[in-house]
Amino acid sequence: MLFHVTLTVQVPGDLSAAQFDHIKRLEKERVLDLQQQGKWLHLWRVAGQYASVGILDVVDNDELHELLSGLPLFRYMAVEVKPLARHPSALA
Amino acid sequence: MLFHVTLTVQVPGDLSAAQFDHIKRLEKERVLDLQQQGKWLHLWRVAGQYASVGILDVVDNDELHELLSGLPLFRYMAVEVKPLARHPSALA
Amino acid sequence: MLFHVTLTVQVPGDLSAAQFDHIKRLEKERVLDLQQQGKWLHLWRVAGQYASVGILDVVDNDELHELLSGLPLFRYMAVEVKPLARHPSALA
Amino acid sequence: MLFHVTLTVQVPGDLSAAQFDHIKRLEKERVLDLQQQGKWLHLWRVAGQYASVGILDVVDNDELHELLSGLPLFRYMAVEVKPLARHPSALA
Amino acid sequence: MLFHVTLTVQVPGDLSAAQFDHIKRLEKERVLDLQQQGKWLHLWRVAGQYASVGILDVVDNDELHELLSGLPLFRYMAVEVKPLARHPSALA
Amino acid sequence: MLFHVTLTVQVPGDLSAAQFDHIKRLEKERVLDLQQQGKWLHLWRVAGQYASVGILDVVDNDELHELLSGLPLFRYMAVEVKPLARHPSALA
Amino acid sequence: MLFHVTLTVQVPGDLSAAQFDHIKRLEKERVLDLQQQGKWLHLWRVAGQYASVGILDVVDNDELHELLSGLPLFRYMAVEVKPLARHPSALA
Amino acid sequence: MLFHVTLTVQVPGDLSAAQFDHIKRLEKERVLDLQQQGKWLHLWRVAGQYASVGILDVVDNDELHELLSGLPLFRYMAVEVKPLARHPSALA
Amino acid sequence: MLFHVTLTVQVPGDLSAAQFDHIKRLEKERVLDLQQQGKWLHLWRVAGQYASVGILDVVDNDELHELLSGLPLFRYMAVEVKPLARHPSALA
Amino acid sequence: MLFHVTLTVQVPGDLSAAQFDHIKRLEKERVLDLQQQGKWLHLWRVAGQYASVGILDVVDNDELHELLSGLPLFRYMAVEVKPLARHPSALA
Repeated sequence: MLFHVTLTVQVPGDLSAAQFDHIKRLEKERVLDLQQQGKWLHLWRVAGQYASVGILDVVDNDELHELLSGLPLFRYMAVEVKPLARHPSALA
Repeated sequence: MLFHVTLTVQVPGDLSAAQFDHIKRLEKERVLDLQQQGKWLHLWRVAGQYASVGILDVVDNDELHELLSGLPLFRYMAVEVKPLARHPSALA
Repeated sequence: MLFHVTLTVQVPGDLSAAQFDHIKRLEKERVLDLQQQGKWLHLWRVAGQYASVGILDVVDNDELHELLSGLPLFRYMAVEVKPLARHPSALA
Repeated sequence: MLFHVTLTVQVPGDLSAAQFDHIKRLEKERVLDLQQQGKWLHLWRVAGQYASVGILDVVDNDELHELLSGLPLFRYMAVEVKPLARHPSALA
Repeated sequence: MLFHVTLTVQVPGDLSAAQFDHIKRLEKERVLDLQQQGKWLHLWRVAGQYASVGILDVVDNDELHELLSGLPLFRYMAVEVKPLARHPSALA
Repeated sequence: MLFHVTLTVQVPGDLSAAQFDHIKRLEKERVLDLQQQGKWLHLWRVAGQYASVGILDVVDNDELHELLSGLPLFRYMAVEVKPLARHPSALA
Repeated sequence: MLFHVTLTVQVPGDLSAAQFDHIKRLEKERVLDLQQQGKWLHLWRVAGQYASVGILDVVDNDELHELLSGLPLFRYMAVEVKPLARHPSALA
Repeated sequence: MLFHVTLTVQVPGDLSAAQFDHIKRLEKERVLDLQQQGKWLHLWRVAGQYASVGILDVVDNDELHELLSGLPLFRYMAVEVKPLARHPSALA
Repeated sequence: MLFHVTLTVQVPGDLSAAQFDHIKRLEKERVLDLQQQGKWLHLWRVAGQYASVGILDVVDNDELHELLSGLPLFRYMAVEVKPLARHPSALA
Repeated sequence: MLFHVTLTVQVPGDLSAAQFDHIKRLEKERVLDLQQQGKWLHLWRVAGQYASVGILDVVDNDELHELLSGLPLFRYMAVEVKPLARHPSALA
């Protein structure tokens, strides 16, 4: 089941650059892992912004929440979620 | 070059059901054609709304505008466009 | 899987009172039927507004969209959807 | 009398993790207690967000305010309240 | 139990002046009646706008909805509702 | 001359609890005093929020500003002002 | 007592050009008259928009409402009102 | 003196296609003429929308308003205006 | 050439009361000076808010920016600018 | 390929004036360099605000993101991006 997520990072003022870099490294590892597991299907950067668009494939809403709230950057992101359905004009 | 588009249809009050059905058939043909040409990579319905999310692959902004403004439903849609860039944590 | 929906009716100006009453009767039948099937768990009116809040229990996003877009009043409603997950402090 | 509340937590920057964990434990105890008293009927997490939707059953607006403003996380939450009425198409 | 309501009239384009005047007369009668019954405690005009602020005293949310949705102008108004509680600094 | 004010307190992060309690005590004294003078006619809490609705009776806009900007919590509040006029359907 | 008003005209689709021109002529006469009476102190056009900013000098909120709601274009305008007070840094 | 304008066309429902085409031809002639006069320096389409961004060079605000309000499509456009100043990091 | 400016002060949390008072004194001197030069024609307080409305008379957009960005409180204000044109119904 | 960017600087509270001045000097150098390379075609200040409008000429969305996210002030700016297409009424 697919979900469309928009993730906008709000750079924290209360962290040192070293702490923030550490969190970003953990985030990258986790996001790569989720892609390799086939749970994170697509990931794009919104050009000009510290924001991403992702398409996630999960079994249900609970897994979606577990996955998103477990991201190392979760505390520093505004998250918008849209459930996706099959489009009647989609090719496949 | 990828673009993220959100298309929200505003059902027109000034068209008969027959006229609107005709436009929707033309829209479906055009969208299927663009998918077969490889210009419209992904197409999803936003669950619960008369809205779609699409990922388009075009050569430049002019082709993007030509493609979107040429959709039969263009006059009846609110369109939001986000240019997409490669994400540093994307797998491929 | 639960979804939270807010449905706000925009009374159409292009329908006669009789036509609108007919659609509302169909809507009521459908909504009662979905409750009897166990797919529409809760339904409340937002006091003072022509709006409702519902909790739906569906197998996936496709069923959610099918159910909402098939409502007789769908064309005349603004729909907002929130996927719900289990709350860590919920009793049961 | 039922009220629909949406509670969005804004993680405080001026608290240590230990202090915040302490407040969250107090919040959980209080919310479980209110559910056991039958005053907090439903509680769901909004998937992907640090937010909750609740349905409260109180005797009047004063009890509603006392209950919400007494939550340990109250200072750190944006609260939206909607009074609910019986829906004419509700089954029971 | 008190509720604060803001009522903003959206002058209908699909009614004749005579029809609209008729609805306004019915509205005035109903609002005067509700004041005489002690259910509508205060009523003010927002200066410069076709809008009103009212304070209603009802037994519960169901009566609030019945009262507001039964106003002759209800179809032509945007309604905002705020439940009111006793203020700790209020004199009486 | 009546004015409708909505006062929403934004709890300051840069004050100690003791300092904030002190300001709140001063606020309460001032607001009670203004009620006793007949300048602050009504005061309600918005249920579920750290916000108030008030009806003020002042001689002119200058007195309104003096009164509101002189509140001990003024620096920590978002203030919205609506001038009120006599309503043609008001009973008295 | 001064009030700041922003008036944005929404050109009506349900009037003929002749009817609208007639209303605009009445509006101009009324606005000139109010200026000559000293009740409408300043009147500017917002460049690029069918909108105006005005400064009105009235005895109270009731006169403000009477004046604005009596404008021939009132039905076709969005009106925003701000009460003005003396500025501590104003020269005179 | 430069101004930045964003022009968003709202396709009118109350005009025939022929009438609207006629207005668009007049608009194009006028816009080309203003460019040839050196008053309209730049004109771009916002990709995916029936909207334009323009840079205008006029002697003062009155000329700006005269120019914009005289556009044949003015009645059908939402116009946003930003006055531009010299940027301290601009090359020339 | 006239411009309408709305200046909303956001009281800084990172300044001592003494520092802020010093900036406000400088602001007052500057604003009085600009009024004496005939560049700041009108200045009003928005009643109930730490906000001002001003009418400025400058030779061009560059002078407008220089004047506003040079205000001692500029860093602590949200500024909204509207270019003003002559109104066809203005008396003089 | 042209893009329209609006850059609004949010003056950081957590930097000393010296640190911020240093970042602004780096920003100026970088922006001048991009203009000399022909990648930043136009740059204007929005009068009265700490904001800029720019027109960028880049080969694709990836270069656009690289350019914007590499600006020394990027962390302190809200960035809005609009892809631009050729306008059918543009002179050249």
